[in-house]
Amino acid sequence: MFRMTTQQATSPQESPVTVVGLGPMGIALAEALQKKGHPITVWNRTASRADELVAKGATRAETVAEAVSASPVTIMCLKDYETMYDVFGPATEELRGRALVNLNSGTPKEAHAAVAWAGEHGVGYLDGAIMVPPYLIGNPESVFLFSGSEEIFNEHRATLSAMGDPRFLGADASLAVLYNTALLGQMYATMNGFLHATALVASAGVPAETFADLSVNWFLPTVVTSTLVAQAPAMDKADYPGEYGTMEMNLNALEHITRTCQEQGVHAQQPELMLNIAKEAIARGYGDKNYFAVFEVFKKAVQAAS
Amino acid sequence: MFRMTTQQATSPQESPVTVVGLGPMGIALAEALQKKGHPITVWNRTASRADELVAKGATRAETVAEAVSASPVTIMCLKDYETMYDVFGPATEELRGRALVNLNSGTPKEAHAAVAWAGEHGVGYLDGAIMVPPYLIGNPESVFLFSGSEEIFNEHRATLSAMGDPRFLGADASLAVLYNTALLGQMYATMNGFLHATALVASAGVPAETFADLSVNWFLPTVVTSTLVAQAPAMDKADYPGEYGTMEMNLNALEHITRTCQEQGVHAQQPELMLNIAKEAIARGYGDKNYFAVFEVFKKAVQAAS
Repeated sequence: MFRMTTQQATSPQESPVTVVGLGPMGIALAEALQKKGHPITVWNRTASRADELVAKGATRAETVAEAVSASPVTIMCLKDYETMYDVFGPATEELRGRALVNLNSGTPKEAHAAVAWAGEHGVGYLDGAIMVPPYLIGNPESVFLFSGSEEIFNEHRATLSAMGDPRFLGADASLAVLYNTALLGQMYATMNGFLHATALVASAGVPAETFADLSVNWFLPTVVTSTLVAQAPAMDKADYPGEYGTMEMNLNALEHITRTCQEQGVHAQQPELMLNIAKEAIARGYGDKNYFAVFEVFKKAVQAAS
Repeated sequence: MFRMTTQQATSPQESPVTVVGLGPMGIALAEALQKKGHPITVWNRTASRADELVAKGATRAETVAEAVSASPVTIMCLKDYETMYDVFGPATEELRGRALVNLNSGTPKEAHAAVAWAGEHGVGYLDGAIMVPPYLIGNPESVFLFSGSEEIFNEHRATLSAMGDPRFLGADASLAVLYNTALLGQMYATMNGFLHATALVASAGVPAETFADLSVNWFLPTVVTSTLVAQAPAMDKADYPGEYGTMEMNLNALEHITRTCQEQGVHAQQPELMLNIAKEAIARGYGDKNYFAVFEVFKKAVQAAS
């Protein structure tokens, strides 16, 4: 009866969901689920973070055990894996037979340890990563990556879809955090590439806005990113034919870039490192291969003894 | 009369062009001009490189002076600026009053020196850079960057358009090579970001082709490159508000990426350098600013004394 009087009446078809951890991301997740009609129960260490959600019809649990007991699935958005053990340690009995979806970030080792912990306690475990900022949560195009139990993923797919576009990566539970970390690294490298190039033209007074239009709107999609997709299958075969340009030729270009940065008084460590990586590729025998052979250098921190 | 009997009759409206330097790029330029109906004269140190062009109607000059005399504009595609002085030194009298378009790569200092040299000899000088590989020359979407004399650019715009999409960057002749170098640096950084991220997921057996579909087709355009364009105007104002994420928060993410690479046995120098650059930004007082403040670090290799 109480629910009928709240602002958003929840549809009885939608499955109840518990959300634990109400930082900006946890709140965005709970709101998206609430909007799609899921009855939600929430818990946060600082209970007042739930006030707005409760005002819109969410149930505030007094303990994690109570929160977990309210729904077949609990979605957590905590600081890290250590916090997960602290928070859910006292609720392992209530978790037994239920599903736990972990959206914390962490390392592959931490994800594997969490699978073992969940197994010990009979918890259906799914590890996940959110690839968008809080304000895009609930958008059907916002990608969420999941890995671990495919059964749990399929069982709760409708719930997961209320938050965004859920993609299952595989049974290895570490895949979601690994993809997440890799994509973040790619993001920073791409941003640094842009920021550094913009700094270089700024040495001649070119505004960032002018340069961005050429470099991001035209150059990246037309010349660069299309090539990445096209070369991926060859990378999987470690096939790097050098007939359209060798590592040695790229080394010349990287030397030229580094020299120009020095001449212009611009920070040169980034091109210097790229130059050294190309040199390492040549030292490992890829001098007559194309630039994508850098992939082989990155895959192994130290050259394997042959 | 001779021209009428060649394979491709040239339209009398198109202006004659001389092309000096017939590497793969020079040949592509000459072919594109020829296809659009420009009568062309060519010269190359190794004369036989011109055979195919001559078979299609080009005129082979015996000397650079003869080549330059044949057209109001000479387009050169040589190894570097030093080669330019070697090749055109004996033809400065013939160049006087004509236009010279330099498509060699080089540094801003070299471009400025070339302007001075051209001025001494009364040569109309335009510096340029080609942003696409030889097989895309002649495509109307292939960007060519030019800087230096706007008068020469406008006078020969139709000729330059036969090779691609000519863009004039400004009167500072160094802009074309500087943009070119900056864009190449951005290309390598973006490629390295992709190759490194792909190496990281490969540590868990993920194929490059699988990862590229998510990382390049979805993540880069949706999450990353749109942000670069959006932030450019704020970069021009050195305005980096930290309310949606500070440099300190990005430092944590970069530490996490570096640690994960070490844990997975993947090459960690690239994330380590990005981590150090974020630390440098914090040391320079940008700890509570957003990540784009890295631009300020890149612009000045050494912090200016205040």
